[in-house]
Amino acid sequence: MNILIVYAHPEPRSLNAALKDFAVEHLRQQGHSVQVSDLYAMKFKAVLDADDYLAHPAAERFNPSEASRLALANGTQADDIAAEQAKLQWADAVILQFPLWWFGLPAILKGWVERVYAYGFAYGVGEHSDHHWGDRYGEGRLAGKRAMLMVSMGGWASHYSERGINGPLNDILFPIHHGMLFYPGFEVLPPFAVYRTSRMDSDGFTTACAQLAQRLDGLWTDAPIAFRRQNGGDYAIPALTLRPELAPGESGLSVHLLHD
Amino acid sequence: MNILIVYAHPEPRSLNAALKDFAVEHLRQQGHSVQVSDLYAMKFKAVLDADDYLAHPAAERFNPSEASRLALANGTQADDIAAEQAKLQWADAVILQFPLWWFGLPAILKGWVERVYAYGFAYGVGEHSDHHWGDRYGEGRLAGKRAMLMVSMGGWASHYSERGINGPLNDILFPIHHGMLFYPGFEVLPPFAVYRTSRMDSDGFTTACAQLAQRLDGLWTDAPIAFRRQNGGDYAIPALTLRPELAPGESGLSVHLLHD
Repeated sequence: MNILIVYAHPEPRSLNAALKDFAVEHLRQQGHSVQVSDLYAMKFKAVLDADDYLAHPAAERFNPSEASRLALANGTQADDIAAEQAKLQWADAVILQFPLWWFGLPAILKGWVERVYAYGFAYGVGEHSDHHWGDRYGEGRLAGKRAMLMVSMGGWASHYSERGINGPLNDILFPIHHGMLFYPGFEVLPPFAVYRTSRMDSDGFTTACAQLAQRLDGLWTDAPIAFRRQNGGDYAIPALTLRPELAPGESGLSVHLLHD
Repeated sequence: MNILIVYAHPEPRSLNAALKDFAVEHLRQQGHSVQVSDLYAMKFKAVLDADDYLAHPAAERFNPSEASRLALANGTQADDIAAEQAKLQWADAVILQFPLWWFGLPAILKGWVERVYAYGFAYGVGEHSDHHWGDRYGEGRLAGKRAMLMVSMGGWASHYSERGINGPLNDILFPIHHGMLFYPGFEVLPPFAVYRTSRMDSDGFTTACAQLAQRLDGLWTDAPIAFRRQNGGDYAIPALTLRPELAPGESGLSVHLLHD
């Protein structure tokens, strides 16, 4: 299979770099093909602006989604955007690897999403009508592929537990899991998380690699997070609210999961 | 009072720009002082890297938090970082204004947080012991100031409602409200949100400005989101889990709110 790792850490001698190198080697040993988009090493342009759309007239008001739509349709996207889209299309699975900075993606990786996720590629796909609100949340151009986060935290696991002060990890990651990965069609696996990174010694690293290997071996077989599909009947369209008979009386992020 | 607006939109003729201009004018008419950090106009550097820490030896392994700590302590931060920190210290209230891109901050604004929020300034502040886990989540260098998001969405309000498919707006914004604003000490006001931006006509704009004026007039008097303070006794330290007798049996983001 083909795996794309989109990797965001500024230091090649970091824990994240060592885990990335381990993942690449392990996947290749299992016979997979791997590409790495090392965003810091590539000096990837983080900021979406009019320069990304080569035919955009300089004097014209810049509407990001409209400029993106036109540029994708006409082949006038910046080369680095098109190259990353080609890698996504090549991949059977995508891993986003990053240190959790301020409870989200590092800016360089957030900018990768904003620029590479073009209108007509990751959003604005498919019919919009009163029974189908675009191919998204379980459908889309990236359907059939799997995705997983590899994320490191300075804090303790308990700080990210169900009643931990930072919020449960899966709730903090919901905008990424559900909003950036499930949205354009990926099946999203539970995250691979490493905690207390500044205290990790060589035994801890060995343990983390063993756990990571197991997760990489399960990329094709582990059960994805059971998000509800938008157009499968669970949501009223166009309000896109969960139908009242499902998870009745409940609210919050967890209602978007299929329960047993 | 002094208000800092940190603003992230690439187009000066956009709805966001018009709302920002309205806010600046309204606040000044009320006698306040306003500064705007227009990140796109400033071509603000979005990506945190070793170049931000002027004394960092090029050959040395780059540890972002350690480099940040040293640079703040020794006055060797990049000038643009120090300038934004000075604005934050000047401000009595801070407004972050942005279009919600992929359910989070635009990369340029996320990078502003990562670079300006230095170790010793926004994190790594105060005593760490078994009864006080740093001055954070309700304490910190930015305590006594207020913060509010001004956020625009292409989608409908119902899509961000309690059972809407995107997740409730306050849950999606939790990593920002709680993790980026309450963390270094801000009192966080409920967000000012504008929906269906592509369909907004001049009547809609007039209505939005009237609602915004009301929120700006309430900056000093509106009730902040009632997040629990970390070191006030509600959390076990150092596990930082909510004590079992509070919101017993519950979990998820809402347990971090004081209930009536």
